[in-house]
Amino acid sequence: MTHAQQILETHPRGAAIDAGALLACIDACFDCAQSCTACADADLGEDDVGTMIRCIRLCLDCSDVCTATGQILSRQTEFEADLARSVVQACVQACRVCREECERHADHHEHCRICADVCRLCEQACDRVLALLAA
Amino acid sequence: MTHAQQILETHPRGAAIDAGALLACIDACFDCAQSCTACADADLGEDDVGTMIRCIRLCLDCSDVCTATGQILSRQTEFEADLARSVVQACVQACRVCREECERHADHHEHCRICADVCRLCEQACDRVLALLAA
Amino acid sequence: MTHAQQILETHPRGAAIDAGALLACIDACFDCAQSCTACADADLGEDDVGTMIRCIRLCLDCSDVCTATGQILSRQTEFEADLARSVVQACVQACRVCREECERHADHHEHCRICADVCRLCEQACDRVLALLAA
Amino acid sequence: MTHAQQILETHPRGAAIDAGALLACIDACFDCAQSCTACADADLGEDDVGTMIRCIRLCLDCSDVCTATGQILSRQTEFEADLARSVVQACVQACRVCREECERHADHHEHCRICADVCRLCEQACDRVLALLAA
Repeated sequence: MTHAQQILETHPRGAAIDAGALLACIDACFDCAQSCTACADADLGEDDVGTMIRCIRLCLDCSDVCTATGQILSRQTEFEADLARSVVQACVQACRVCREECERHADHHEHCRICADVCRLCEQACDRVLALLAA
Repeated sequence: MTHAQQILETHPRGAAIDAGALLACIDACFDCAQSCTACADADLGEDDVGTMIRCIRLCLDCSDVCTATGQILSRQTEFEADLARSVVQACVQACRVCREECERHADHHEHCRICADVCRLCEQACDRVLALLAA
Repeated sequence: MTHAQQILETHPRGAAIDAGALLACIDACFDCAQSCTACADADLGEDDVGTMIRCIRLCLDCSDVCTATGQILSRQTEFEADLARSVVQACVQACRVCREECERHADHHEHCRICADVCRLCEQACDRVLALLAA
Repeated sequence: MTHAQQILETHPRGAAIDAGALLACIDACFDCAQSCTACADADLGEDDVGTMIRCIRLCLDCSDVCTATGQILSRQTEFEADLARSVVQACVQACRVCREECERHADHHEHCRICADVCRLCEQACDRVLALLAA
């Protein structure tokens, strides 16, 4: 059991939406924030950095959005569904454009292939949360 | 002239959208991130903290979204309009719900009145950027 | 194998310091950033919020420092040991004061007990990195 | 009067340390976070990006540390001097190494010259806060 799950289970107000989907999304957001920061940095260390500019930029953006999304979804008290939806939608968008760019480099930079996978997992976890927020 | 403006004017690729609207929005985002952090903290120090829970929570969310938005709009290289739009839309939403809550406390907590003003300014600056991104 | 490890192993410049200690610290920082955000929020939802003010404040600080530390340690390119040391030292300090406060509430708020554990793990992971940076 | 000052003056517990020095440091931290993000991005857009790798990396680190420092100093409730000191020390270190690198590029990249100035202002503002925290 992750620490996120343990704390959520002892939260005085409980999970604002389905706990499984919420925890998966929180975890995916923090994982994607880290991966995108690390991928942008790995890009910076490559000999062909001149061809990685767009990848670096989108990884930085994705990391910023994922961090904010992970923080906001970690809060259950006075949960505001409309705000959560807007933020998670931005996160899906950030993960999508970052993933698409990372995929272009996946065959020559293994870190881009992995980062694209992490972005895809985060998109999927966000989509599940969006489905719950729309209900 | 702000430092943000000076750096933008010397950026090798120039401003991705109208520089005036962009700089106003970047400035408003960082200002709102600070104000919301400070207002949440002032709420925590009030005797009636038990009635400020929703205000604290929404200020924290708003600060997170404004920080991410300010960072992303500060990047001009390989600017991605669709991503910027999603993020700025989330920022408008965060500022709106935070402002509405702060306004409820504006008559008894001056910091909430000020924070509501800052949120409104940020909403307006974001709206101007959205109008440009839609064009 | 975590995504952080996979990306680190494919980084063109390799890990700046011992990969095991580095990955443990990165992971602990992101975990602690999430736990502290969630614990501050759980505190806000408690009936005795008035007695949790210091805990909330220190959890917010700890989350901010852990996020910055996790991001910085995720970068291997042009690693700067002196900067890493200062940041990790601040992280140890943030985790320590947050843990000590959480421990005071551990017997009546389970989320504080868990958050204190996470802070301790992060302190320990940071201490191992500091030992390497001092070498 | 800035919004930061207005909110600080209406904070129920007042400023934790001298308000002038505190506000100058908060403002400098947010300004430096923005400048470093913008400078890293301008570096990415330069034709000689291959020579700007270290500058980009240190700007990203400096932005992260300045953001955390600005947030933490914005909180007056249950202010913890030892934690503030550690964080501000890390901020001085981040600003110093970033400034030194930016200065190397100041004659051919105007944004680096400006960013170096902003880093120096932040170092100085942090140093004044450190002097107060040591007292």
